Amino acid sequence: MEVVQVLHMKGGVGETSYANNSLVQRKVISMTKPITEEAMTKLYCSTYPASIVIADLGCSSGPNTLFVVSELIKLVDSIRQKLGQKSPEYQVFLNDLPGNDFNTIFKSLPNFQNKLKKQLGRGSGPCFFTGVPGSFYGRLFRHNSLHFIHSSYSLQWLSQVPEGLESNKGNIYMASTSPPDVLKAYYEQFQQDFSLFLKCRSEELVEGGRMVLTFLGRRSDDPSSKECCYIWELLAMALNDMVFEGLIEEEKLNSFNIPQYTPSPAEVKSEVLKEGSFMIDRLEVTEVNWNAYQNEFDLSDAFKDGGYNVAKCMRAVAEPLLASHFGEAIIDEVFRRYRDIVANRMSKEKTEFVNVIISLIKG
Amino acid sequence: MEVVQVLHMKGGVGETSYANNSLVQRKVISMTKPITEEAMTKLYCSTYPASIVIADLGCSSGPNTLFVVSELIKLVDSIRQKLGQKSPEYQVFLNDLPGNDFNTIFKSLPNFQNKLKKQLGRGSGPCFFTGVPGSFYGRLFRHNSLHFIHSSYSLQWLSQVPEGLESNKGNIYMASTSPPDVLKAYYEQFQQDFSLFLKCRSEELVEGGRMVLTFLGRRSDDPSSKECCYIWELLAMALNDMVFEGLIEEEKLNSFNIPQYTPSPAEVKSEVLKEGSFMIDRLEVTEVNWNAYQNEFDLSDAFKDGGYNVAKCMRAVAEPLLASHFGEAIIDEVFRRYRDIVANRMSKEKTEFVNVIISLIKG
Repeated sequence: MEVVQVLHMKGGVGETSYANNSLVQRKVISMTKPITEEAMTKLYCSTYPASIVIADLGCSSGPNTLFVVSELIKLVDSIRQKLGQKSPEYQVFLNDLPGNDFNTIFKSLPNFQNKLKKQLGRGSGPCFFTGVPGSFYGRLFRHNSLHFIHSSYSLQWLSQVPEGLESNKGNIYMASTSPPDVLKAYYEQFQQDFSLFLKCRSEELVEGGRMVLTFLGRRSDDPSSKECCYIWELLAMALNDMVFEGLIEEEKLNSFNIPQYTPSPAEVKSEVLKEGSFMIDRLEVTEVNWNAYQNEFDLSDAFKDGGYNVAKCMRAVAEPLLASHFGEAIIDEVFRRYRDIVANRMSKEKTEFVNVIISLIKG
Repeated sequence: MEVVQVLHMKGGVGETSYANNSLVQRKVISMTKPITEEAMTKLYCSTYPASIVIADLGCSSGPNTLFVVSELIKLVDSIRQKLGQKSPEYQVFLNDLPGNDFNTIFKSLPNFQNKLKKQLGRGSGPCFFTGVPGSFYGRLFRHNSLHFIHSSYSLQWLSQVPEGLESNKGNIYMASTSPPDVLKAYYEQFQQDFSLFLKCRSEELVEGGRMVLTFLGRRSDDPSSKECCYIWELLAMALNDMVFEGLIEEEKLNSFNIPQYTPSPAEVKSEVLKEGSFMIDRLEVTEVNWNAYQNEFDLSDAFKDGGYNVAKCMRAVAEPLLASHFGEAIIDEVFRRYRDIVANRMSKEKTEFVNVIISLIKG
């Protein structure tokens, strides 16, 4: 499986699209907003650049895509107004893998830009939006050409499924039953990928440029800890049930592994220090409930079903990966079963994603 | 009709897509190559910049999209090798309206970039490709951020259907039977649009930056001359026949006009001089046969039918415009009739598009 070709959030604006099932990711972005805004404020106020170039890496296609950058532009605009500074021009690079649904983003841009213009003060500079297809585990931008990089819930995706996972039978990710060499292979792939990521970004950022990265991660030192692996173990249960019933070939399941690594804050820090181009301004950990609709009122009945919400959210993320390996035909059935399994577990225990957020400065 | 929302070449890679029916446009790009390459050579050799930023405006989606820029990159690479210069980094901005099929371009990029890398010499700099959705009748790029702009067969499209065409009944474009105020309205829209285009580009180009623009145009001073209007008059014939047979409402036809203006070299020159930001390096006129397959050998039988080729080419260009105004249902029938009309005329007279090419320098 070529991750660069296969991995993308589910496109379009249909019921099972990522655009309509990305509320968890939105919540995480909102939770991280104070850190992101602090970084941008420090950046802007240190040099008042005539133009600000912002890249969002792993922008996906949906309401979250333009949310972060528009908040950042509004922030800078309000500061420059208070200080009586001339507005900078804004260049926004929206990056994701080539399979991402950029058409849907682009079609929404004219209305979005009109709306944004109205929200900004008089004399605000023009905002230019461009799409950048490609893997962030490689250079994407010219030398010294970016001021600010944001990435949320993307860097846990690896550049490839690690090699040497043959012994991870019955699992689709690291799990409590995974042998040590599987955990090692996953960790080494993370180190290699994240270190390359840092090197590329350090070439692209200007001196003093900043970067706020949010990983789906974990608190524990154990990479097979339940807090990060359970959500995939439940999906593996659904798949194993279908193997048992002869709906999926065992060999197919044994050769499938999710190209993801959910690091601890210590692992993230360690790679940053090793690579050496960045200073750490902040490193934080937060949690968000699996069910983004938890604690929301006025929900229609469908959304009161946590298992339904979580299964849809995970489907929007994982369907292209699963469909490419197992075929389209089994998808509905996998997620029907997954929904029941998830609902059952959610009724019995606390289920949360862990977010690792790091704010970095180049130089 | 909002041109920005509606106008785009037909997407995808199907039989009637623009990607599969853009050979005329490819020929025009090839014919213009000596002028484009001369401009790039002069640009590169005047300053040997550490990075070259190239924009293709109206890039469409198909084999032509990456053709021009890859030829330009190969040219610079061969010069820098001969001169023993360090390679620049290349940044390519592919621009078209938001309805353009960018997804298809982006999915083809990983293979394209691998192939390009192999064609370039050792030590060649990285090439970064980005998509820029938006109208070129407005700012698209930051101040002073581009070195080279290319645009082929796009600038004849106006930003909107001119106002005041109520008297152009039975026609869909300027025609020999159009009243003078219709010709005037079209010309004024062209002047306004092209002048705005020049102003925006002069803000975006660096001092000494260059621009090569190819218009679908005309030689004659008469804007309703057959050399530029005939191809649309034949389409109007097909539509009028269908009105006569009650398949299209007369009112629908009377309110439809193509947002295009095919200028003469004198008109192009006049706007450039009036706007004042650019010096003219070259201004040339060439012709290309309506039927791109003319003079080609080894054709399958289908492609020997000139009417078929021309109708498909025009359909790939005009289908989204027509479908938005008349509805999808009539499209097949319109182009079946158009094909017959075109074939008949091609058998009796010389049918050519006229290309107006201008090479400009900022400063």
